[in-house]
Amino acid sequence: MPRAWAGLAAAALALALAVSLWRRRPRPVREVLFFPSPPICTEALLAEAAGPGAVTRPCRCPLPRGDCSLSRLLRRLLSARRTLELCLFAFSSPQLARAVQLLHRRGVRVRVVIDAQSMEMKGSQIGLLRHAGIQVRHDQESGYMHHKFAIVDGRMLMTGSLNWTTQAIQNNRENVLVVEDAEYVKAFLDEFERIWEEYNPRNYRFFP
Amino acid sequence: MPRAWAGLAAAALALALAVSLWRRRPRPVREVLFFPSPPICTEALLAEAAGPGAVTRPCRCPLPRGDCSLSRLLRRLLSARRTLELCLFAFSSPQLARAVQLLHRRGVRVRVVIDAQSMEMKGSQIGLLRHAGIQVRHDQESGYMHHKFAIVDGRMLMTGSLNWTTQAIQNNRENVLVVEDAEYVKAFLDEFERIWEEYNPRNYRFFP
Repeated sequence: MPRAWAGLAAAALALALAVSLWRRRPRPVREVLFFPSPPICTEALLAEAAGPGAVTRPCRCPLPRGDCSLSRLLRRLLSARRTLELCLFAFSSPQLARAVQLLHRRGVRVRVVIDAQSMEMKGSQIGLLRHAGIQVRHDQESGYMHHKFAIVDGRMLMTGSLNWTTQAIQNNRENVLVVEDAEYVKAFLDEFERIWEEYNPRNYRFFP
Repeated sequence: MPRAWAGLAAAALALALAVSLWRRRPRPVREVLFFPSPPICTEALLAEAAGPGAVTRPCRCPLPRGDCSLSRLLRRLLSARRTLELCLFAFSSPQLARAVQLLHRRGVRVRVVIDAQSMEMKGSQIGLLRHAGIQVRHDQESGYMHHKFAIVDGRMLMTGSLNWTTQAIQNNRENVLVVEDAEYVKAFLDEFERIWEEYNPRNYRFFP
């Protein structure tokens, strides 16, 4: 009988260990960000993400540095270590563009899909991103490439109504869902790869 | 010892029953719809949702009736039994507007929040909805009310990049997430109630 008790005790211990490990597992991100978000200074946030080797000076601008939807979006974005897919209708926010350039410099493979009409709008950051060496592809369609999503490291999806413009961030009612969910990420990554291939410059028609 | 065996058997039976019930529970909806969606005839779908008492005639138009992102979105919408909250930047799709009017006639409490600028655009369905007796509120802000979400019966959220226009449905690259998830629904319902109260006509400023 003592052997039976020992077996039972070992089983209970194993169960307790499994439960403890399961509970310590980081909970998948499930966040909803609502906008407008107030104007903030994002220099400290970007400097922190640039790594210990980067030369940075503290910013003296009077803008607040508090926690808000924009800072949360930026932190999620800057958590990228390997890959970043962006599929955006419009991209004119200098703060978000600096974050994307920083990731590119850190060695993250960044790919951007953008709507052709919005790409030419005032303030578009696409030229700067291309100049920095980031791969960008755009549509040649009459309809809009109206998605607004990002995929970080093939594990986290950010999607919603928010175009990546300062106007939208600071003035509009907007939402962004941030989710670590394999099923959703796969659906959006498949959509990205489909579009990425369709918008391959090899397929451009220069003489309609 | 026979009593112990009987106890064990009863416990095993109870466990099997619990597992079986848990497995039979309908899985919460988790769907991603991508657009563009081809033009389709939605008459049969609407007639089916109008209920057995409604007078309907089969449509003879040549459009296909197949399964697509629009028909799926419509089915989800038409599943409403008690409440429907719409928080939309633009609403000019006659097919979606007919579905919303049908729900209103069926006794579903429909509330619509819309962007003031888009409300005045050509093809806007807001006038028709108001004429049918549906409650509509709009902003008075300089920024856009840029959300595009719907909440069905306080249990299902539909949100994404899609404005409810035929142009977006048929021509644009768009996405809609459909989720039955208490946490996300609560976040968006809270946002809706905040906006609904802020856009109360009592707060309109007629003499700026």
